[in-house]
Amino acid sequence: MKNVLIIGANGQVGKIIATKMAASADFTPVALFRKEKQKEFFEEHDVDYKIVDLEEDIEFLVNAMEGMDAVVFTAGSGGKTGYDKTLTIDLDGAVKSMEAAQTAGVKRFVVISALHADNRERWDKSGIKPYYVAKHYADHFLKSSGLDYTILRPGRLFNKQGTGKITITDPASQEGVAREDVANTVLEVLNHDRTIGKTMEFNEGNTPIEEVISEI
Amino acid sequence: MKNVLIIGANGQVGKIIATKMAASADFTPVALFRKEKQKEFFEEHDVDYKIVDLEEDIEFLVNAMEGMDAVVFTAGSGGKTGYDKTLTIDLDGAVKSMEAAQTAGVKRFVVISALHADNRERWDKSGIKPYYVAKHYADHFLKSSGLDYTILRPGRLFNKQGTGKITITDPASQEGVAREDVANTVLEVLNHDRTIGKTMEFNEGNTPIEEVISEI
Repeated sequence: MKNVLIIGANGQVGKIIATKMAASADFTPVALFRKEKQKEFFEEHDVDYKIVDLEEDIEFLVNAMEGMDAVVFTAGSGGKTGYDKTLTIDLDGAVKSMEAAQTAGVKRFVVISALHADNRERWDKSGIKPYYVAKHYADHFLKSSGLDYTILRPGRLFNKQGTGKITITDPASQEGVAREDVANTVLEVLNHDRTIGKTMEFNEGNTPIEEVISEI
Repeated sequence: MKNVLIIGANGQVGKIIATKMAASADFTPVALFRKEKQKEFFEEHDVDYKIVDLEEDIEFLVNAMEGMDAVVFTAGSGGKTGYDKTLTIDLDGAVKSMEAAQTAGVKRFVVISALHADNRERWDKSGIKPYYVAKHYADHFLKSSGLDYTILRPGRLFNKQGTGKITITDPASQEGVAREDVANTVLEVLNHDRTIGKTMEFNEGNTPIEEVISEI
C-alpha cells in the first residue's frame, strides 16, 4: 500500500483520485486541503486528511509529507480568484510542494498540468494565457527538481463518466477528457515506474490507459 | 564598444541606463520598448531603438538581438496593470528574452530583479507577493539558462541623485537605492566579467560601486 498525499484534494479531480485510491488495494490516500469545512467529504469517504494552506510556511507541507511514498499535486486557484492567486497557488504553491517533497525525502511526484503548457503559440488564443504561464514554469521547475516526476497534461476536463481509454499520440485532435479518466491515469501512473521522468499530453482516446502507459 | 540591448528601456531605470551608455565610451545602447510614441525620448538622446512588444512572438526578440554583445532586462509591467501582466511580462517576458538570447547567441545577460526575491518570508509582508513570485522564477530560470548572467537585486528605488556607493554586505539594513546607482551598477557589471554567474543584493551604501564589484 503506497501512502499518497493528494494536494488540492478538494478539487473535482482531487476528490475522484481520493475516492478511487480509498477503494484500491494499492493506495492509502491522504487528502490535503485548505478549509476546515472541506473535511466532511473525506470523513464520509473514510479518507485521512490534513488541513494546510499552500500560502502558509513551507514547513506545514514538509510535515504533511511525513510517511508518504508519493505526492499528487492537483491544486489550482480556479477561475473565481484573481491572477494574484495564479502566481501564489498554481505556480508558487506547486513549487513549494515540490521543495517540501525534496526536504521530506518523498521522491515520487505527479502533477496535473495542462495540455499545451509548453506551447506559447496556443496560450494567446486560450483566453487564459497567465494560467498557462504559471503551469509552464511550475512544470519547468519540476523537471529540474531531481524528483521522480510525472507531468500529466490533459486537455479540457469534462464531468462525465470515464471510458478508461486515452490517446497520447494526437491529444489535440480530441476535445478533452473526463475528470474520471484523469484520476484513473494518476493511479496507473503511480503503479508504473516507467512513467518517471515523463510528460504525458493526453485526451480521451481509443486505447486503454494501462496499455498507453505500458508503451511510453 | 559593446552593443547592449536594453529591454524595458522606457522605464525609469531603463532611460538612465540608455543615456549613461550613450555618454560612455564603452557602450553602444539599443533601446527596446513597446510603443511607437516612446521613441521620442531616445531620438532626442541619440539612442538607437527597436519597437517590440514582449507579448509578441519570440522571433521579434531574437531579431532584435542580432549584433548585440549583451542584454539588460529591466522591463516590468508596473503597478498600474493587473497580475495577468505580472505573469506575462515580468515572468514570461523575462524568460522569453532569455530564450531569445540563447537562440541569438548573445551570452551576456543582466537582469534587474528585486531584493528578497529568494526570500519567501518577506513576500507576505510586502503587499506585492505575486510580483516577488514572478521575479523569483524568472531569476531561477536565468540561473539554469547557461547564459553569462548577473542578477541585480536592489531594494526600494528612489528618484534621487546617485551617490555612486552601495552595500552588498547588509542591503536589508538600508531603505533602498537611487535609480541612478542601479544604472551605474549595470554599467560597472558589464565592464567586469567577474560578475558573471553572480547575484548581487544591494542598496545605497558606503563603498564605491567599482570597489564592491572588484571584491565579489
